[in-house]
Amino acid sequence: MSHPRGPLAQLRRGHEELVLGLLRKHGPLSRGELGKLCQLSRTTLYDILAGLVAGGAVVAAGPQDAPRGRGRPAETLTLNPEAGQAIGIDFARRAVHVAAVNLAHEIVGSASEPHDADLPWEQRVDLAERLVGSLNDGGLRLGALSAIGAGVVGPVGWPEPEDDPEPEDDPEPDEPAHPVQPLLRERFGAPVLLDNNTRLAALGEAIWGAAAGDRDVLYLRLSHGVGGGLVVGGALHRGAYGLSGEFGHITVDPDGAPCDCGGTGCLETVASIRAVLDAYRAAGGRADDVPELVKAIRAGDGAALTLLEGVGGTIGGVLAAVCNAIGPSVIVIGGELAETGPALIEPVERALRAQVMPVSRHRVSLRRATLGEAAGALGGIALVLHESPLLSRYPAGPDLAPDLLEDIKRRQP
Amino acid sequence: MSHPRGPLAQLRRGHEELVLGLLRKHGPLSRGELGKLCQLSRTTLYDILAGLVAGGAVVAAGPQDAPRGRGRPAETLTLNPEAGQAIGIDFARRAVHVAAVNLAHEIVGSASEPHDADLPWEQRVDLAERLVGSLNDGGLRLGALSAIGAGVVGPVGWPEPEDDPEPEDDPEPDEPAHPVQPLLRERFGAPVLLDNNTRLAALGEAIWGAAAGDRDVLYLRLSHGVGGGLVVGGALHRGAYGLSGEFGHITVDPDGAPCDCGGTGCLETVASIRAVLDAYRAAGGRADDVPELVKAIRAGDGAALTLLEGVGGTIGGVLAAVCNAIGPSVIVIGGELAETGPALIEPVERALRAQVMPVSRHRVSLRRATLGEAAGALGGIALVLHESPLLSRYPAGPDLAPDLLEDIKRRQP
Repeated sequence: MSHPRGPLAQLRRGHEELVLGLLRKHGPLSRGELGKLCQLSRTTLYDILAGLVAGGAVVAAGPQDAPRGRGRPAETLTLNPEAGQAIGIDFARRAVHVAAVNLAHEIVGSASEPHDADLPWEQRVDLAERLVGSLNDGGLRLGALSAIGAGVVGPVGWPEPEDDPEPEDDPEPDEPAHPVQPLLRERFGAPVLLDNNTRLAALGEAIWGAAAGDRDVLYLRLSHGVGGGLVVGGALHRGAYGLSGEFGHITVDPDGAPCDCGGTGCLETVASIRAVLDAYRAAGGRADDVPELVKAIRAGDGAALTLLEGVGGTIGGVLAAVCNAIGPSVIVIGGELAETGPALIEPVERALRAQVMPVSRHRVSLRRATLGEAAGALGGIALVLHESPLLSRYPAGPDLAPDLLEDIKRRQP
Repeated sequence: MSHPRGPLAQLRRGHEELVLGLLRKHGPLSRGELGKLCQLSRTTLYDILAGLVAGGAVVAAGPQDAPRGRGRPAETLTLNPEAGQAIGIDFARRAVHVAAVNLAHEIVGSASEPHDADLPWEQRVDLAERLVGSLNDGGLRLGALSAIGAGVVGPVGWPEPEDDPEPEDDPEPDEPAHPVQPLLRERFGAPVLLDNNTRLAALGEAIWGAAAGDRDVLYLRLSHGVGGGLVVGGALHRGAYGLSGEFGHITVDPDGAPCDCGGTGCLETVASIRAVLDAYRAAGGRADDVPELVKAIRAGDGAALTLLEGVGGTIGGVLAAVCNAIGPSVIVIGGELAETGPALIEPVERALRAQVMPVSRHRVSLRRATLGEAAGALGGIALVLHESPLLSRYPAGPDLAPDLLEDIKRRQP
């Protein structure tokens, strides 16, 4: 599938979106009803409909019940429930997660697959394509794909401040925001919106998950990396250079271990999956992954419980500091390590309540995430659909490719 | 001055604001010109004008140059430059700061006076009234006062979450948000908008001060208390229960000194004026107040420099943590302790740059506040005028008395 540019192609896409929007709103309609509602000429409408049917976006439904004595019943057209409108992809450190919504904005399905941390981007995109192909029992059609919302680890490219004293650290301005962007665009033939994957998970939880409806949310993800996202005053927060929610790089021990970020003693050096498993093994425990650690905890293993007590206390202290600064009403904890349950969450909560300002102590609610590993991919879909009020003021930075964002917005009904 | 309620009084105030708005926009106008612009009946207009002139809001200017041969030149009317439209008052821990703007939204002046920490509210309001009376060489008239924006120490009352497990800590819902509110309303006969005084200082600095024009700002005030405020994504941030910006109560030493907030080892126990002076005296220094400490620093006193190096490092560490969480582009440091200059600010900056995520290191700018002790009072005025885009989405909580806020908004031209 390709997305030709130019005014005529844009006009055509506008007409397509008009027709798709009417079908989304009204359900199955006959050609005659569509003609009355869309106000396009009969020739134009039939041409648009032929394209949508050929592309798989629209299918013929059964004939409507027509009034008696008026000839044969008119065929009606409807959205193809197997036509994807938006795909969300979370390129996590060691896994790819995908999800898709159809033209009716219903979630078609989600899928995940782990991989090695050093898998090249080309192959991660292969994996994403395969997972997308498996959705909806392999019946998902991409003929009406509006865009892809993709999350990647770490800060997504953002313009340099003027007079940056160390510009050599950063990519050239003409380069794509991230190497996966051109790969995805080529593979799926659709615009690609990029953002930090953990921020997208925060968005997903704040729209559909543990914090649905809350206006001030702190989301913390404890996974191979430690990060998070913020909803402040009813809006997803990005930060001046897209660098917010980096709770994993808050220093918890100035004399601690070196961190991948270049800092020292960051929360991530204590509370990532690797850090916790390493510490558990150093304490004589045996676990190669989080499920094994969870088993040890359920068996009442003392070393595991003591370790998580300490890690939870450190996490709670960081959350208390951030709470005092920002004042959320809800804290959501997600990521694989949250699967350790009360063994981790209870010490987190104790330290949080002990260190947050006493006046805030009973005003913040701590919750487990509910969307599981699909949260980031679902957040990517939310970014594409751009319907959540949480995004109504979300800035469209250069890496969000404003022309594409405009394009997508215009194509939303 | 009183503000009668009821639909007729509201209608009249609406007419008054219409006339005042026209004079603000166009400058001096004759009665005839006003009549054409405001579309009110001649009787109504003359009645409104008589009230505004009697109240001191409007004064007669010299006659306009009239076209020749058209009889005597018409008298023009203009805004009284000595008529205050809004007053801002910062009730700090040990001082009252006031500022006022006239009907043309020009700052008429500001004034401050220190007092003992235990001065009763009644007398603080006396002091505020005296200071307001001194503005504009004592010529300020309050006949057109729209409202008072007042800042107070600590969180301003906010609704309880449901099922609060310790409701006895908090004021009754029917009580005013703060004891100063009814006192001010009675004394000045105008609606009172209340907010945290440090958040108002942040607002002032972000509108007119060191961070004017920036959309992501962290303001830290080092005074008798330590607190701050946030502008996130171009909006003043309040937090779920009005409890944001409490940087002073972030724990810096879990084994540290008890804090007034009920916590232990908060930043405020290390970086408040009292904490710094106490530590200086404990190190053999002699200073009863910040100016004396500044003198010691200028004289190169080793104990003072070593102390501020340590305090600055602690402050910088807290700022780094908050930066990683929120991603501001500008940090503004205000409050009396900032007067110690580079002796404090340089170690703050070193610790900040050492502990913030390396990728953010050159993206955040550290600045001294520029509005001095008037910042909070100016922020109170900004709250009343409600013209800054930073306030366009500011929530009107119950303590902001929504009916009053609506009233004030309606009265803005």
